[in-house]
Amino acid sequence: MTEQFGLLCIGNAIVDILSPVSDELIAAQEAHGMKRNAMNLIDPKRAQEIYELMSSATETSGGSACNTAACYGSFGGKGAFIGLTANDQFGQIFSHDIHAQKIHYSTPPLENGVGTARSYILVTPDGHRTMNTYLGACVHLNPTHIDEGLVKSSAITYLEGFLFDEPQAKQAFITAADLTHKYQRKIALTLSDTFCVERHRSDFLSFIRERVDILFANELELISLYQTNDLDEAIQKAKKDCKFVVVTMGPQGSQIITEHETVRVHAEPTQVVDTTGAGDSYAAGVLFGLSQNLPLKECARLGSIAAAEVISHFGPRPLTSLASLIPADLKAA
Amino acid sequence: MTEQFGLLCIGNAIVDILSPVSDELIAAQEAHGMKRNAMNLIDPKRAQEIYELMSSATETSGGSACNTAACYGSFGGKGAFIGLTANDQFGQIFSHDIHAQKIHYSTPPLENGVGTARSYILVTPDGHRTMNTYLGACVHLNPTHIDEGLVKSSAITYLEGFLFDEPQAKQAFITAADLTHKYQRKIALTLSDTFCVERHRSDFLSFIRERVDILFANELELISLYQTNDLDEAIQKAKKDCKFVVVTMGPQGSQIITEHETVRVHAEPTQVVDTTGAGDSYAAGVLFGLSQNLPLKECARLGSIAAAEVISHFGPRPLTSLASLIPADLKAA
Repeated sequence: MTEQFGLLCIGNAIVDILSPVSDELIAAQEAHGMKRNAMNLIDPKRAQEIYELMSSATETSGGSACNTAACYGSFGGKGAFIGLTANDQFGQIFSHDIHAQKIHYSTPPLENGVGTARSYILVTPDGHRTMNTYLGACVHLNPTHIDEGLVKSSAITYLEGFLFDEPQAKQAFITAADLTHKYQRKIALTLSDTFCVERHRSDFLSFIRERVDILFANELELISLYQTNDLDEAIQKAKKDCKFVVVTMGPQGSQIITEHETVRVHAEPTQVVDTTGAGDSYAAGVLFGLSQNLPLKECARLGSIAAAEVISHFGPRPLTSLASLIPADLKAA
Repeated sequence: MTEQFGLLCIGNAIVDILSPVSDELIAAQEAHGMKRNAMNLIDPKRAQEIYELMSSATETSGGSACNTAACYGSFGGKGAFIGLTANDQFGQIFSHDIHAQKIHYSTPPLENGVGTARSYILVTPDGHRTMNTYLGACVHLNPTHIDEGLVKSSAITYLEGFLFDEPQAKQAFITAADLTHKYQRKIALTLSDTFCVERHRSDFLSFIRERVDILFANELELISLYQTNDLDEAIQKAKKDCKFVVVTMGPQGSQIITEHETVRVHAEPTQVVDTTGAGDSYAAGVLFGLSQNLPLKECARLGSIAAAEVISHFGPRPLTSLASLIPADLKAA
C-alpha cells in the first residue's frame, strides 16, 4: 500500500515572537524561574510581563513538529500536520505559513475565545534561544483531532515530546501511536527539551520502548533521559530501547545509530544568529532523506544542511528553499 | 523653550508581512497591476490573493515614519509617534514594538472592526521590496488625532508622503504642519515613493514650498517630483523650494544640500538582504545627528550606518541597538 504522505507531524501550533536580548536580562529572569536555553511554560500574565521586557520583535510561525513539517515541505517532501490554533490573526499566520510550504493542514481552529499559542523567544548574543510558551489553544488538542485517515496515509508519524505536557494532548499522542502501528506505519518521536524529559522521564521511556521506531534527541536530552553524564553510555542504552536513534550535538554535528551501523556527520559551517528550530530542521532533513531512500550518512547531511540554513537568521523556518540546497550528488541518487 | 521630544513622526501604523519571492512571481503580478519596487495600495480581497502567493512569512512592525521613529529611539533619541491601529493582535504587535524602542505612542486604537494595516512585502533576490499595502485602520487617521501638545513638545515633526493618499489623513498632515509652525518647530517630509509622488505631485510641490523645512527623498522620487531625468537638475530645483534637502541614492550613498553647503557620504558596506526600511532608517540617522548638533557629514554618516544595519536582514527595524553602532568619534563630539 503506497502512502499519500511521507510524513505526518503532530505538535503544538505556535507563533514565535522573537527578539534579541542581553545575557543580563536572562540572568535577571532566572531569579523568576526562567530556565535559560529551555522551553518554559507560562501563563498569559507572565507572557505579558516577558513581552514587555522584549525589544522590537519578529513574529513567525513556529512549533517544533510544525517547523519539521515546514522544512520537510521546503525540501519538496509531501507532508501533513495536525495541531490546534484559534480563530485569530496569529492562527491565520500559522495556517498561511504551513500551507505556503504545501503541507496538508486541516485541523479546524478553536472558537472558544482562547488565543493561538505564542512562544516568546529571547535570543542571547551566543545565538541560543530561551523559549517562554503560552500554550493557549494547544492545550485543547485531544484524540478527536487525530485524523485516522491521515495517519493511515503517512509513512511516518512524527510526534513532539512537548505534547506530553498536557493530559489531553498526551492522550492524542497515544491515539496517534496506536493508529500508526495499526496501519504498519512508523512512529518517530523527538524528546524536545531536557526539562520536558525530566518532567516525563518514565512515561517517555515506556513510550519509546513500546512504540517508537525512530528517536530524535539532542545530547543533553538523551543524557537526561538516561540519567547519566556520559553520552556514549546514554546512546548504548537508547540503542537497546529503540532501533533507530538520531542524536544531534550542536556544532559537533550529529550521529545516527541503528542496529546495523553508526554514522556521524559534521555540522555545516555557518554563522549562528538564532538556534531556534535547529533540531526541528535537522530532523526534517533526516526524514526527507529517509523518504528518498538515501544512505544514512546522506540523511544526516541533509539534516545538517537544513539546520545551517535555519540558524543563520532569526526564526525557525527556512528563508531559502531547502530543495535548492540539496547537493547535486544527492539529487542524482 | 526646550522640547520634550527631538522628533515626532506621523504616519501609517502598519505591520509588515514579508517573504522572499522570485523575480518571475513579480513579473506575473505586473500583469495584474503590481508595480515592482513600489508601494501598491490594495483592498482586502487583493491582500488575500497576494498573501496566498507568498511563502512562509515573517511579521514585523513597519510603516515608513514609524520605522524612522523606532530607529531614532534605537539611537537613543527621545521621540514620539502618531498613527492609527485597530484593537487586534497586529495592533498589539505594532504598539509593543514602538514602545520597546521607548517611543511615546498613545494614539487610541480604532474599535470599529476595521483591522490594523498590513503591508504584504515581496522581497526579490536582489534584496529589493515590492510593497502591497492594505491601509485598514490607517485611513481613519484625521486631524483630531494630531495632539497639539505633542507637536508643541517636539523639535521636528516628520511626515510621510504616504499620508497624502487618504483625504482625512492628508488633512491631519496639514493640521500637523500648521501646528508645527505655530510653535516655531520644524517640519520634515519624506516623499515616500515615486508613484505616491506622481499621484500627488502638485500638492507635494505646494506643500514643500509653503511648509517644509527638511525634505527627504531618494533620487527617483526627486526626479519624479521635478519631472526631469537629471538628478542634478532636480536637486537644483529642490534647493530653490526647500532650504534643507536630503537625497539618498542607494548603493551610491547620499547627499545633503543646504543653502550653505553640500555634503556627500558613501553607503556603508553591507550584504543587502532586504531593503525594506532603508530610507526610513537613513532619515532617523540624519535626524538623530541633527538633534545632537553634529556636522552634516556626520549626520549623513549616521544615516548610512542605520540603513546598513536594516538592509542586512529581513524587516525594516534594527535587530541591533543603533546606539551601539555610533562611531566612537561621534559619541565624543
